[in-house]
Amino acid sequence: MIFDVLTLFPEMIENYFSYSILKRAVDNGILSVNTINPRDYTLNKHKKVDDTPYGGGAGMVLMPQPYVDAYESIVRKENTVTIMLSPQGEPLNDQIVNELAGYEQIIMLCGHYEGFDERIREIIKPREISIGDFVLTGGELPALCLIDAVSRKLDGTLGKIESADEDSFSNGLIEYPHYTKPREYRGLKVPEVLLNGNHKEINEFRYQESLKRTKLKRPDLYSAYIEKLSK
Amino acid sequence: MIFDVLTLFPEMIENYFSYSILKRAVDNGILSVNTINPRDYTLNKHKKVDDTPYGGGAGMVLMPQPYVDAYESIVRKENTVTIMLSPQGEPLNDQIVNELAGYEQIIMLCGHYEGFDERIREIIKPREISIGDFVLTGGELPALCLIDAVSRKLDGTLGKIESADEDSFSNGLIEYPHYTKPREYRGLKVPEVLLNGNHKEINEFRYQESLKRTKLKRPDLYSAYIEKLSK
Repeated sequence: MIFDVLTLFPEMIENYFSYSILKRAVDNGILSVNTINPRDYTLNKHKKVDDTPYGGGAGMVLMPQPYVDAYESIVRKENTVTIMLSPQGEPLNDQIVNELAGYEQIIMLCGHYEGFDERIREIIKPREISIGDFVLTGGELPALCLIDAVSRKLDGTLGKIESADEDSFSNGLIEYPHYTKPREYRGLKVPEVLLNGNHKEINEFRYQESLKRTKLKRPDLYSAYIEKLSK
Repeated sequence: MIFDVLTLFPEMIENYFSYSILKRAVDNGILSVNTINPRDYTLNKHKKVDDTPYGGGAGMVLMPQPYVDAYESIVRKENTVTIMLSPQGEPLNDQIVNELAGYEQIIMLCGHYEGFDERIREIIKPREISIGDFVLTGGELPALCLIDAVSRKLDGTLGKIESADEDSFSNGLIEYPHYTKPREYRGLKVPEVLLNGNHKEINEFRYQESLKRTKLKRPDLYSAYIEKLSK
């Protein structure tokens, strides 16, 4: 999987792949992450990428030329999708992550400051994705979230000791509680059922805990799950 | 505002504050970001922080002792909140961001690998926050999203040329389109109304565009907005 990220802050993206599971996935050739800086595509001598908004108001607006030219410089694979990270987009969820994991290349446009000149949207026609109803200083963190979430789904990213199958949301419920050593910590004990080696009982316990937690913490997901079951 | 982040990957957090608006906010003393590594609090000689789950299954589970001891080492201010970043939490939104901006100190617990031993939740009793219904390799990106979103709301983080007042969600709608130079790009023109200097007309245009876009892209937000208006 190739991730191409248009950003004014390439190091923000690159640094993230120096650690842990994603570094290993890059080293193993499962994914590659490239950054393209629109500032390198400016035609003005001060390498200016933004200017004041027509109609007035606070903030700076990203000019169309550097972004469109930077975008058009990217070599496109056959099976590719372009995504703009923006609070206006469809909210990212596990289904979209699975869908995106099927592409060969994902091109991402990260804004910064006030936002994109509208003509960038009109020309590039990206799919717009948001990671939630809150506002950030730039699209770099959302791009990293998207890359991280999609990468976890690719064959070989997670090793044998990790797993995406039992994640929250993969079955529509949030995860059951986990316990590891020691058996007792500050008076709190690991539930007996997890120690008896009876896998049927363990699975039933975990399923019931998942249901209970989803009902308590995310009644919206719980309703959707129950509705699906009753069909 | 003090952000204290418990993480096994302190550099992932620290690197983010080397750039742009948030670097300036740190330099100006508006916020400070500290990292605490639970690995430094392990009592075993291999500095092991995780172990296999009781009851079996894929993934490793973060042991309670290093996290609880690391947590208890933090000097707590009077007006403080502890947050666990987890897909099980309440979804982060602009209202929660505003609420969190009122604290003096935010302590954050980032997981990695499979998840936290349940007793970490029971002992620390954090508020659990999720940045969306998708799963990441760790809590570091969600912690950065939270810090970034909250920091933008603090007095002095955004300069005069930026603004949080006109952000998406601040009035319950997504943002109107922005335009900057040039007036015409690849045949696409800036709407006339933005050039005529009539601020009443400009405001009306922007409001109508905000409404139109919210209705099209986020019917859920649009319904909530209309309902609020009609009360």
